[in-house]
Amino acid sequence: MTTMTMLAAEERTEVLSLGENIVELLGSGKIAALREELKNENVVDIAVAVSELETEDLLRVFRILPKDISADVFSYLDSDDQARLVESITDKELEQLLDEMYLDDTVDFIEEVPANIVKRVLARSDSKTRSLINKFLQYPENSAGSIMTIEYVELHDYFTAQQAVDYIRHTGYDKETVYNCFCIDHQRHLIGTVALEDLLFCKADTPIKEIMDVDDSLISVSTSDDQEYVADIAKKYDLLSVPVVDNEKRLVGIITIDDIIDVMEDEATEDIEKMNLLLPSDDEYLKTSVFTMAKNRIVWLLVLMISATFTGQIIANFEDKLSAIAGLTACIPMLMDTGGNAGNQVSTLIIRGLALGEVRPKDYFKVLWKELRVALICGVLLAIVNFGRMFVIRAVTHVATPTPVFFVVCAAMIFAVMVAKIIGCTLPIIAKLLHLDPALMAGPMITTIVDAVTLLIYFALANRFLTFA
Amino acid sequence: MTTMTMLAAEERTEVLSLGENIVELLGSGKIAALREELKNENVVDIAVAVSELETEDLLRVFRILPKDISADVFSYLDSDDQARLVESITDKELEQLLDEMYLDDTVDFIEEVPANIVKRVLARSDSKTRSLINKFLQYPENSAGSIMTIEYVELHDYFTAQQAVDYIRHTGYDKETVYNCFCIDHQRHLIGTVALEDLLFCKADTPIKEIMDVDDSLISVSTSDDQEYVADIAKKYDLLSVPVVDNEKRLVGIITIDDIIDVMEDEATEDIEKMNLLLPSDDEYLKTSVFTMAKNRIVWLLVLMISATFTGQIIANFEDKLSAIAGLTACIPMLMDTGGNAGNQVSTLIIRGLALGEVRPKDYFKVLWKELRVALICGVLLAIVNFGRMFVIRAVTHVATPTPVFFVVCAAMIFAVMVAKIIGCTLPIIAKLLHLDPALMAGPMITTIVDAVTLLIYFALANRFLTFA
Repeated sequence: MTTMTMLAAEERTEVLSLGENIVELLGSGKIAALREELKNENVVDIAVAVSELETEDLLRVFRILPKDISADVFSYLDSDDQARLVESITDKELEQLLDEMYLDDTVDFIEEVPANIVKRVLARSDSKTRSLINKFLQYPENSAGSIMTIEYVELHDYFTAQQAVDYIRHTGYDKETVYNCFCIDHQRHLIGTVALEDLLFCKADTPIKEIMDVDDSLISVSTSDDQEYVADIAKKYDLLSVPVVDNEKRLVGIITIDDIIDVMEDEATEDIEKMNLLLPSDDEYLKTSVFTMAKNRIVWLLVLMISATFTGQIIANFEDKLSAIAGLTACIPMLMDTGGNAGNQVSTLIIRGLALGEVRPKDYFKVLWKELRVALICGVLLAIVNFGRMFVIRAVTHVATPTPVFFVVCAAMIFAVMVAKIIGCTLPIIAKLLHLDPALMAGPMITTIVDAVTLLIYFALANRFLTFA
Repeated sequence: MTTMTMLAAEERTEVLSLGENIVELLGSGKIAALREELKNENVVDIAVAVSELETEDLLRVFRILPKDISADVFSYLDSDDQARLVESITDKELEQLLDEMYLDDTVDFIEEVPANIVKRVLARSDSKTRSLINKFLQYPENSAGSIMTIEYVELHDYFTAQQAVDYIRHTGYDKETVYNCFCIDHQRHLIGTVALEDLLFCKADTPIKEIMDVDDSLISVSTSDDQEYVADIAKKYDLLSVPVVDNEKRLVGIITIDDIIDVMEDEATEDIEKMNLLLPSDDEYLKTSVFTMAKNRIVWLLVLMISATFTGQIIANFEDKLSAIAGLTACIPMLMDTGGNAGNQVSTLIIRGLALGEVRPKDYFKVLWKELRVALICGVLLAIVNFGRMFVIRAVTHVATPTPVFFVVCAAMIFAVMVAKIIGCTLPIIAKLLHLDPALMAGPMITTIVDAVTLLIYFALANRFLTFA
């Protein structure tokens, strides 16, 4: 090989993605080179790369990887890829895989794949794992119980720091985290949490009772608590893991930060979806069926279509007068849009503020007072620009809008923005007080209400200040 | 004291919040009891409780707390409370506080408080801290450099596991995390990361070179990377901390998971704000001034008000014909709302999908094909219900809408939903391809475009199929 081709080959290797590299090495049968290559890669990257492979190649890579790595990679695969892999492996391989996987990953996997695979997985699990899996599957969806793991380190309250560290060294290797350990009494009640770093920084003979968090500062959640609550707690107290207790305060599991981050992301997505008229969906966009999508969307579209009847009837009742004065009708979309947009803005801020705990229902009057002032500034500015806009439109089109209409539209604009801001900050807070989800009181819902009110104001002002032939 | 009053007293204590308890104990001068009480409380809860106190009481609690705890509590206070506390403490207390605080918390604090306090803080810092603070303040806002901390553990590549653990024991107590340590060569280049748990689980004489993550699986970010990228990396690879390197790949800091969670929350808020016509704001709702709020909202309100001119002109041009046939005008809000809502739904899903990496621009045709089918199902269902709705309206009102109008409105409905879905999935993906933020192509923007198109379709159908007198 000349230096030139060597360089070219090197360069090409550099440009190849991990996935392409795997395909090439598999194709040319360089199994040892592939094993070496994969050893240095992150499991997440391997999972992304192999998910693009044909099932046959996927299976080959899976078999090349060391057992513990392949179980990790498996946990990061999408449920579709997990399913096709499990369908191809032998029962013995399945047993080894289940043995290496963390229980919470196994439960996640089982919840997503078709029934025939679930059956096979349960059949190849030992009876203890099987009963644990069944127990996990009984926790309500999105509860703390459903996302917790049982692979944590339990310490006894009579340990010294050194004993605790030794105990962690011997039992911690297959736990999901050892950075927070949990101290229980003889009835398995949670009595304290111990951070590994505190164990390292104290004298070897310090009793762990002296360094653990106890009493008031002991934070835990119950199996039935909503996952959103778990995420809020973890975020508030900067926790790396949250202990989960049953009704009798006995420790039954922990939830680790990686799962909490997934919850935070899901909850943000759910809020965004609700704010935009979608029934929340658990699946990724490309994996959701057309029928499910239509179902998630049609409900709100129907409700709001029917509500728009009121807006339509308001216009219908005023139709004769609208056609009597040039330019009145043309301003309807602008007034409705601006009102809706203004309401949308404030409801967004309030909904997000409520979700993050930055705004509380008791702040309502502070919020209202603030919104009224913001609305006045925005309304007046919009009215001024609109006055100019209408002037320009009259100059360039053949529609001779009478000047009094300018004033009516501008006044309606200011009122509409004020009303929109009031409605936009009030409805989410009312929803919160009624224990409904404030996210439902978002843009489109607000828009429909504000639209009707805006039109009523507009027509009332027109009736009062304009002379109809 | 009788048993009754004892019970009552106990009960009352139970009901009292931590804040009320503090006020009561301070008021009755029970300083020892207060110190005992606070010892068992979480610093986050203490911070929440003392933020409600008058400055004088706040200062007293601050002085009661042990130095390290008071620094922790201080880090969790809002910038307003931090400012009033710093204004009240002596120079000596300020020095002690700065000494106990983590550097990244100090930088956060300095970025938020008034200039006179910044000046005082810099004056009381030692020259090394001062130059570090100044360096941090120079990183661009929201960059990895601006949120990183320099309090991490550096290991040398020739350490054994036992040496590393001993080194962590001796130097780790004032580091922000010891769970991930970072290995550098003699030029301070980052060459590997070492998890504390791996150090515990291997033999004492194992060289750390053998257990650390190196080469391809070594993940780091650069000081100038956007914080959103850092959060994506941490989430993707389930990291507890992300190393930050400079242009020469020398390790300069780390970003810990608690700060990454804050970034994730901020980014979700920013996306929600952008999707709802708000310029992103860094402050909490109640802390943002009325003027800033008006400024953050007026731009988009103005832009969309002006754009609504087109919709208005489309209606104005058709006004004569609208008034010629009963019921045509009344259906305008319903058609516009439904089109807008349908477009809004899909743009929300695509924007969120793009943000989470679930949808990529290359999936466009898959998305389009899916949306066309969803739109057909939704459009036809809406049209059927609308037909019934118009029938009912005609029966209960005095407006005798001719039956052909029913068909025109229903046909327009189906077309409007189809067009809305196409626009709603296309614009965010185009924005992504143009390296604009897809979040801008959300509901209100889509609505304004879809409104105009819906009306054009409606009027074209009316023109073609209805007979005007």
